Amino acid sequence: MQTNELHDSPPVLNDEHWMARAIELAKKGWYSTMPNPRVGCVLVKNGQVLAEGWHQRPGQGHAEVEAIAAAVNVGAEIKGATAYVTLEPCSHHGKTGPCCEALAEAGVRRVVYGMEDPNPQVSARGLEYLRSQGVEVHGPVLEDECRALNPGFISRMLHRRPLVRLKLAMSLDARTAMANGESKWITSAAARSDVQRLRAGSCAVISGIESILQDNPAMNVRRDDLGLSKDLCDLATERQPIRVILDSALRMDPKSQLLSKPGKVLICTLDDPQSEKAKALKAVCPELEVIQAKAWQDRIDLHWLVSELGKRECNEVLVETGASLAGSFLRRGLLDELIIYMAPKLLGSKARPIFELPLDTMAAHLPLMIDSIEPIGQDWKITARPDIES
Amino acid sequence: MQTNELHDSPPVLNDEHWMARAIELAKKGWYSTMPNPRVGCVLVKNGQVLAEGWHQRPGQGHAEVEAIAAAVNVGAEIKGATAYVTLEPCSHHGKTGPCCEALAEAGVRRVVYGMEDPNPQVSARGLEYLRSQGVEVHGPVLEDECRALNPGFISRMLHRRPLVRLKLAMSLDARTAMANGESKWITSAAARSDVQRLRAGSCAVISGIESILQDNPAMNVRRDDLGLSKDLCDLATERQPIRVILDSALRMDPKSQLLSKPGKVLICTLDDPQSEKAKALKAVCPELEVIQAKAWQDRIDLHWLVSELGKRECNEVLVETGASLAGSFLRRGLLDELIIYMAPKLLGSKARPIFELPLDTMAAHLPLMIDSIEPIGQDWKITARPDIES
Repeated sequence: MQTNELHDSPPVLNDEHWMARAIELAKKGWYSTMPNPRVGCVLVKNGQVLAEGWHQRPGQGHAEVEAIAAAVNVGAEIKGATAYVTLEPCSHHGKTGPCCEALAEAGVRRVVYGMEDPNPQVSARGLEYLRSQGVEVHGPVLEDECRALNPGFISRMLHRRPLVRLKLAMSLDARTAMANGESKWITSAAARSDVQRLRAGSCAVISGIESILQDNPAMNVRRDDLGLSKDLCDLATERQPIRVILDSALRMDPKSQLLSKPGKVLICTLDDPQSEKAKALKAVCPELEVIQAKAWQDRIDLHWLVSELGKRECNEVLVETGASLAGSFLRRGLLDELIIYMAPKLLGSKARPIFELPLDTMAAHLPLMIDSIEPIGQDWKITARPDIES
Repeated sequence: MQTNELHDSPPVLNDEHWMARAIELAKKGWYSTMPNPRVGCVLVKNGQVLAEGWHQRPGQGHAEVEAIAAAVNVGAEIKGATAYVTLEPCSHHGKTGPCCEALAEAGVRRVVYGMEDPNPQVSARGLEYLRSQGVEVHGPVLEDECRALNPGFISRMLHRRPLVRLKLAMSLDARTAMANGESKWITSAAARSDVQRLRAGSCAVISGIESILQDNPAMNVRRDDLGLSKDLCDLATERQPIRVILDSALRMDPKSQLLSKPGKVLICTLDDPQSEKAKALKAVCPELEVIQAKAWQDRIDLHWLVSELGKRECNEVLVETGASLAGSFLRRGLLDELIIYMAPKLLGSKARPIFELPLDTMAAHLPLMIDSIEPIGQDWKITARPDIES
């Protein structure tokens, strides 16, 4: 009989297995937890899931609290369970009580965490508290995967600035538009839908006034283009990323499409943010804020911009713009990631380059690290980052 | 005992299994069979290999003849065997006797072929002969893989022209050199070694006089850079691809490195191929041939060139050149394949484009099919072809 039991029992499920499940849960909040981190939690006892939770929206329960509530709801006995949580349980009293206290009070015997709190000033306090309450603590488990849930949140905690990601669509010969500006559409619908998901996962989207005046984009997240399940579409569209426009001379057209869409718009200008022009813009867009930018070489200082968005609790920001502003971000060392959608076509040598980046010698080249190149529809998605080691 | 036999017997090996082995054998001749096709042959009897053969060099035995000789050599009884051969056995009397006769005479019971003879004028005659001799014929088997052994040979048989492949090395922003011409080295050693193997598998390598005068390349196959086994290096370097230079005004420098390396050089010119200059060049390079090219719009006619190389029994030719000539090949619809090595770096917006290709509207774009993008060293190898369907 013992032999039969062994034969019939499922494979041993280890810490990595349950952490992978917690990561899946965290991802459900991909488009809605910001500015908070994406976190998932699984309560396991005797090799069985008691309950699961994930952090859905700011102001709502953290993943651990959601999991405990779910367990209580079904009458499960939490005492003696193991909690798998992708991020160290918080130790501070915010909009909800500290999760480390909630776990200890619920009688959790063991906590397995994915990564420590990235804020060096609070890091490990939640774990210390748990240990002080006699709870066994183990981790980090699947740390890289857990960190990948929150690259922007981690950047903000460590460096007080968001993760800055540039997105662009180019041809195989690295052209983003024809000489006359024509650029619709270089890539296919599948790639454009992927861009919508990038937007939806961002706290802010940045563009330059030139691109706005040229193309009159809405720059919003569009439900029909997301290609997500109904639940995720609901979460993704109940908030919109802040649309940030760099507009030194305040040339924004009050009839711009982006001013007519729901969601916050932030115009950064070197002009007077209280001018009649600014007032006229605010009259057509109640959620518009016009702010005075810091200048650097007669242009808006991009370091100031990134810092300002960090203060506004932006985790991930997406730059969607032309070669000139994209080149400035790159040259000033402000890009953490490049997402390039490459279409299988040639636009020719007269078409516009991806970056205004005047270099004279091979030695002056900008080295990149390419993390992946994957097919998406008929295009290819290149994920790269500046190689600061080289 | 029967049960035990069943239990111990290897899995049933089907026609695909043995054809895959024949394809492996054919690949051994990758760098040495031209202008003949790459062909492999396996003789199988009672589920066991009797002997194997592959076509090594022009003038030497075809794969079938080699396999039969190998079987005879070890005293194996061929009668009743099955022959797996990647290409329909030949029916003509060339430098060796017809393989279809050799197979029938040897008593082969069954012939499995990978693809028919691509020459429409002789196609299927070898198979017909075999059937007429009472040999069972089956195929095509793994036809796509067998065709991929000989894209240039097939092109020459069907269209009387070689397969024309363009190779280039570019940065992620699709630049092949700095404005001043500096281009060493965009890609890493692994990619450059792959280019050596492309060269070694080609019957001819084409370049323009501008590139030669600028960079003074040797354009030969270098043993140490091939990254192949000793046997394959021996085969690959005992012949060199014809180095073809487009030199309208006969500006070739007699001190050019390429004239001092072993192997044939073909200079195509619109100037007088009997001039004093031509004689001076031939004096330093005995294997040099200077020929009169056909003109098209005051330049060398690339259609004429490709046709001429077909007449010279070139199967695969490799174009290694700058943006101007590369753009001409592309615009005239002469490229069958593009092999692009993309380095993870940006060379900037002043650097040289991959093609001189002046287009004005999105509608005028050149559509491509991307067959694969694979990492090679720290670079990425893109295999693409013009999408003539679009």
